[in-house]
Amino acid sequence: MSEPTAPLLALFSDFGYGGPYVGQVMAVWAAEAPAIPRVELFSGAPAFDVEAGAHLLFAYSRTLPEGSVVEAVVDPGVGGPRAAVVVRADGLWFCGPDNGLFGVVVGRAQSCAAWRVEWRPEFLSQTFHGRDLFAPVAARIAVAGAPPQPSAATDPQRLIGEISDPAERVILVDGFGNLVTGIPAMAADHRDRIGIGGKRVAHAQRFGECEPGSPFWYENANGLIEVAVNRGSAAESFGACVGTPVRLIT
Amino acid sequence: MSEPTAPLLALFSDFGYGGPYVGQVMAVWAAEAPAIPRVELFSGAPAFDVEAGAHLLFAYSRTLPEGSVVEAVVDPGVGGPRAAVVVRADGLWFCGPDNGLFGVVVGRAQSCAAWRVEWRPEFLSQTFHGRDLFAPVAARIAVAGAPPQPSAATDPQRLIGEISDPAERVILVDGFGNLVTGIPAMAADHRDRIGIGGKRVAHAQRFGECEPGSPFWYENANGLIEVAVNRGSAAESFGACVGTPVRLIT
Amino acid sequence: MSEPTAPLLALFSDFGYGGPYVGQVMAVWAAEAPAIPRVELFSGAPAFDVEAGAHLLFAYSRTLPEGSVVEAVVDPGVGGPRAAVVVRADGLWFCGPDNGLFGVVVGRAQSCAAWRVEWRPEFLSQTFHGRDLFAPVAARIAVAGAPPQPSAATDPQRLIGEISDPAERVILVDGFGNLVTGIPAMAADHRDRIGIGGKRVAHAQRFGECEPGSPFWYENANGLIEVAVNRGSAAESFGACVGTPVRLIT
Repeated sequence: MSEPTAPLLALFSDFGYGGPYVGQVMAVWAAEAPAIPRVELFSGAPAFDVEAGAHLLFAYSRTLPEGSVVEAVVDPGVGGPRAAVVVRADGLWFCGPDNGLFGVVVGRAQSCAAWRVEWRPEFLSQTFHGRDLFAPVAARIAVAGAPPQPSAATDPQRLIGEISDPAERVILVDGFGNLVTGIPAMAADHRDRIGIGGKRVAHAQRFGECEPGSPFWYENANGLIEVAVNRGSAAESFGACVGTPVRLIT
Repeated sequence: MSEPTAPLLALFSDFGYGGPYVGQVMAVWAAEAPAIPRVELFSGAPAFDVEAGAHLLFAYSRTLPEGSVVEAVVDPGVGGPRAAVVVRADGLWFCGPDNGLFGVVVGRAQSCAAWRVEWRPEFLSQTFHGRDLFAPVAARIAVAGAPPQPSAATDPQRLIGEISDPAERVILVDGFGNLVTGIPAMAADHRDRIGIGGKRVAHAQRFGECEPGSPFWYENANGLIEVAVNRGSAAESFGACVGTPVRLIT
Repeated sequence: MSEPTAPLLALFSDFGYGGPYVGQVMAVWAAEAPAIPRVELFSGAPAFDVEAGAHLLFAYSRTLPEGSVVEAVVDPGVGGPRAAVVVRADGLWFCGPDNGLFGVVVGRAQSCAAWRVEWRPEFLSQTFHGRDLFAPVAARIAVAGAPPQPSAATDPQRLIGEISDPAERVILVDGFGNLVTGIPAMAADHRDRIGIGGKRVAHAQRFGECEPGSPFWYENANGLIEVAVNRGSAAESFGACVGTPVRLIT
């Protein structure tokens, strides 16, 4: 059994919560790095939406302990020619497809390095690189503290691709119907308003401040501007979904 | 790395299964108490429904091994003035908001103690005390066997609040459409009936006893009266949801 | 604390993702075999559909490391007279109900042994043998490398029951709306077509090969024929659900 060198292995993906995908990745980690804690960080990234994934990945990995390894998979081009990459950004490791998914992480990093992974497993399915390729890559980084060989250093800035930052739209609807946007809260002032669906929504510090049924925006716990309705569903109130445009009105 | 003193860390919440909330709590535990097994006990408590949560929390924690620490979060007043509390009841530890969520646990405990937690983390978001406050509190209890300092002993009976016990209503609809009620099965006799939606439902020992499509009530595996339809959905059959009144007819 | 002898404990079930069932099984494992990694392999098997479960169980357990123990629960007859069994097939352990659920695993195994489990726990609920019976059985196999006593060897072939192999129908609709069939991909040639809903679907190697919106079939990452629509939902396109007939046209 290998010595653990990483605090934890975390999975971020658009696999959803109804398939065997998360469990099969966890099984690879349990077999290859049994001493390292495994966390299903988030499996509800909007399917195929690389830009939404890029913003959520940054937001949700911010609070992970230093040295953690995040496997990130939003991968509409799986099985095609896109490369596999490893990124080290501000003390965290990331691995996944080279399609822009690491664009926000790289774009905001103070210090950053990247590798193109040439290593391949014995068996590689056409459609589940999350299990067959990225999971063993993540486990090896967690155990060895470096990308598996062969890998080649590459320019991290190239990974940013066409990702917009900020993303002025809804990037996630959570289970409460709250609308997570791709706008960092630090870009806004408490007197600013959020435009959505032809309406303007004012700021509140927290849910308890508003009447039940009232919409407001707030800085969510992951640093993003989020539009919510106290004890209600903002998605229903605004007829909004992932992709609905959102505007910061300063 | 700390020595483990608790059998396991368990999370009970209304976070649902589509957000990053559970994963972020697990990441805190993995970092702060890596040697202690982590369990997502239940994340499907009805949103904001403290009374339903109080009954489900008691029911689902009954079978945990002695010494386990349960973080429980159904917290509509997050960010407001409600306190953070730790409860020790019949060999289990609980932590979470002081809003009645521990009312059933405390009300039925043979032995009980409680603390108001004054300790605060360096970073405390307005909306996610489950990650920022209760998760490190739970991890510290698991490692040290005591609430973090500073904490002040408080009267546990005060935590019961306005929680009804029993709760004569549906407190959960599970994935099969079964209707979990807030009535303990030990309050009922097998000849009793359950009144719901103007109908009366008789007891059956198990699903196999009834014709497919027939409704019945039974003692569920967690000690609560549950109304089900063999190979069907009781929620659909009765047009019932969380909050639908239920009556024990003796 | 026991020495670990199994690589991992994996749970396969139709418990779904909205109940406390998975968490309560994990809590038993964490208490009884804390040193052995626990994996929620799959909880989305179609409810009560033993045949679909049998095919998915084989498909999803193929990639587990040798020596792993899989608790499998699709158990419409829970609480009735059906026996509890343990199967050892090609280096993996399985435990669960004797109702055909292990039919595909046994039918395709190169080497196989089976036991009828007579051991019973102190407390056995009528409806949740997954927690009360199969979970401790799995934990004991993981720790001791053998079924708990008393158990009696039985003919594994008898466990196949009435399970069809292949199953020419949809056995799962995943979160993307992809249609998983019970037909092993190795039964098909790339020139074959899949008949579903009166239409014929051709093969593609991967999603990227097809126009967005086009249907195709492919070998999924678990060895089954799957019908998908690139960046769309095959379930919606074909009005298909679990049980919809599927035909391999050679």
